[in-house]
Amino acid sequence: MSIVVVGSVVLDSIKTPHGEVTDVLGGSASFFSIAASLFTDVRLVGVVGGDFPHSDMDFLRGKRIDLTGLEVVPEGKTFRWKGEYSQNMNHRTSLCTELNVFAEFSPKLPEIYKSSPVAFLGNIDPELQLNVLDQVLSPRFTACDTMNFWISGKKDLLQQVLRRVNLFFINDSEAIELTDEPNVFKACQKLLEWGPTTVVIKRGEYGSFVMRQDMVYLLPAYPLEWVQDPTGAGDTYAAGFLGYLDRVGKVDNDSLRRAAIFGTIVASFTCEGFGLDSIGHTTRAQIQSRAKEFVNMLKVPGGLSGLRL
Amino acid sequence: MSIVVVGSVVLDSIKTPHGEVTDVLGGSASFFSIAASLFTDVRLVGVVGGDFPHSDMDFLRGKRIDLTGLEVVPEGKTFRWKGEYSQNMNHRTSLCTELNVFAEFSPKLPEIYKSSPVAFLGNIDPELQLNVLDQVLSPRFTACDTMNFWISGKKDLLQQVLRRVNLFFINDSEAIELTDEPNVFKACQKLLEWGPTTVVIKRGEYGSFVMRQDMVYLLPAYPLEWVQDPTGAGDTYAAGFLGYLDRVGKVDNDSLRRAAIFGTIVASFTCEGFGLDSIGHTTRAQIQSRAKEFVNMLKVPGGLSGLRL
Repeated sequence: MSIVVVGSVVLDSIKTPHGEVTDVLGGSASFFSIAASLFTDVRLVGVVGGDFPHSDMDFLRGKRIDLTGLEVVPEGKTFRWKGEYSQNMNHRTSLCTELNVFAEFSPKLPEIYKSSPVAFLGNIDPELQLNVLDQVLSPRFTACDTMNFWISGKKDLLQQVLRRVNLFFINDSEAIELTDEPNVFKACQKLLEWGPTTVVIKRGEYGSFVMRQDMVYLLPAYPLEWVQDPTGAGDTYAAGFLGYLDRVGKVDNDSLRRAAIFGTIVASFTCEGFGLDSIGHTTRAQIQSRAKEFVNMLKVPGGLSGLRL
Repeated sequence: MSIVVVGSVVLDSIKTPHGEVTDVLGGSASFFSIAASLFTDVRLVGVVGGDFPHSDMDFLRGKRIDLTGLEVVPEGKTFRWKGEYSQNMNHRTSLCTELNVFAEFSPKLPEIYKSSPVAFLGNIDPELQLNVLDQVLSPRFTACDTMNFWISGKKDLLQQVLRRVNLFFINDSEAIELTDEPNVFKACQKLLEWGPTTVVIKRGEYGSFVMRQDMVYLLPAYPLEWVQDPTGAGDTYAAGFLGYLDRVGKVDNDSLRRAAIFGTIVASFTCEGFGLDSIGHTTRAQIQSRAKEFVNMLKVPGGLSGLRL
């Protein structure tokens, strides 16, 4: 099994109330790849400049990540982003975004990638997402993410993408903005009408939920007492989710519920360090152990029969 | 079994994006009593003026609510509150607060109330809450609620209350404000050190969680596609929670988890109508049925063993 991921590879400079880092490996493709590699083989499609650190390249290569699709533009500079989080971590301000080589990014899937059963289109221009969908050979399962920038700028193209993917990851506020519905559950139903059979709503520290025509699955977040840096939480949530689905090789309602649990757990590790510091060194045993602890915090004693009045 | 509740009885005027009502029955004691009466017998302690509508008195009397402790001040006016909710319902503005007879409220528990096994101290002055604790005869279980007004104005007295109650209901932002901890889970641990053995954090549309030294129970909210008026959601959450505990007559970890589920369901009905319009006409069968539907949305398939990687 394997997952193709298309997205950005970025050198992030991040400031949170707990510290500050400069030019650390980030971007949707990096976060997704590193986290998904805990579950399955990953094939990365992205672009970096000649200045991309050898250490970061080695770090990616040391995981189960195929880098054949990572284009290097020797004369170009790698995408750079600089951001700062508010005191309570609920808001972040982008201080600087230099697209550099990413401005001309045109994803090209190596032949060997095209047969991957799962494809994840990270948060990039919907035009590029469509381009990738044209290249994959009837994958079993496609998923995409997006952000407010594309919702306001390229809504029509984004809707075209949604008609062609199976699963859509989106934040609650973005789902409301995209659909013009005041309520997130109504927004979700509209998104299901637009195409994907599964919509996954991410709500940050409050958790997530999965909606299909015949299922709603509600999940709180793992209770972290300390968050160092939430950058990449959304991408790694998607990675745990899709990584698990690819690993078990099926997409039924039960697998989707478990996938949301693993997405949640993976994202919780991400938040405990700057950039990839934490999730980049997390083991599958740690994921498994925290998932067990988490499920105990969700248990309804006695199930339905325990609730008779 | 029975619960004593002490709190406000108010005539509310409320405006939400979905409409507007004037002088409808509200206040923590009214909301709590009506909702808890779905589970057990309720004994209300409060005060109203001579202008309190007969229809509201009859409505309360028609439920399982003992009104011996509801003082009527014939020459006085009933507490009135006027508020307006924002478009997304996440913020409300108090436009007018006339305490009237409530300004001089000094709760007096009728003799027969003093043996009630459960007592709930609604969101009132901590001084009055302490006064009530002095009157109850070693009840099996005491719980209280509060609000930011008392946190900033009477923090010391509130901490005295906390030393003497078993369970504390509080909003997440208020828990953070009260403890000066930046993180809600850390805030909770501090609150547990201050006295109560159980802390219940309410997070509005995002759900709630229950924390004890040996348990964390996480619960999302019931997914409402339409909210008419969230007034009273917190009080009725507490009512479903404590009403269930009183009904089953025990306070172990399993009962607390189920209590949180019933609190959630009761609060969801409250939000579907103005004031008491919805929860005041909800049946136990409807609560039961929605609880079943809700638990299906939370189910982890196969439990722990289903999560082996």
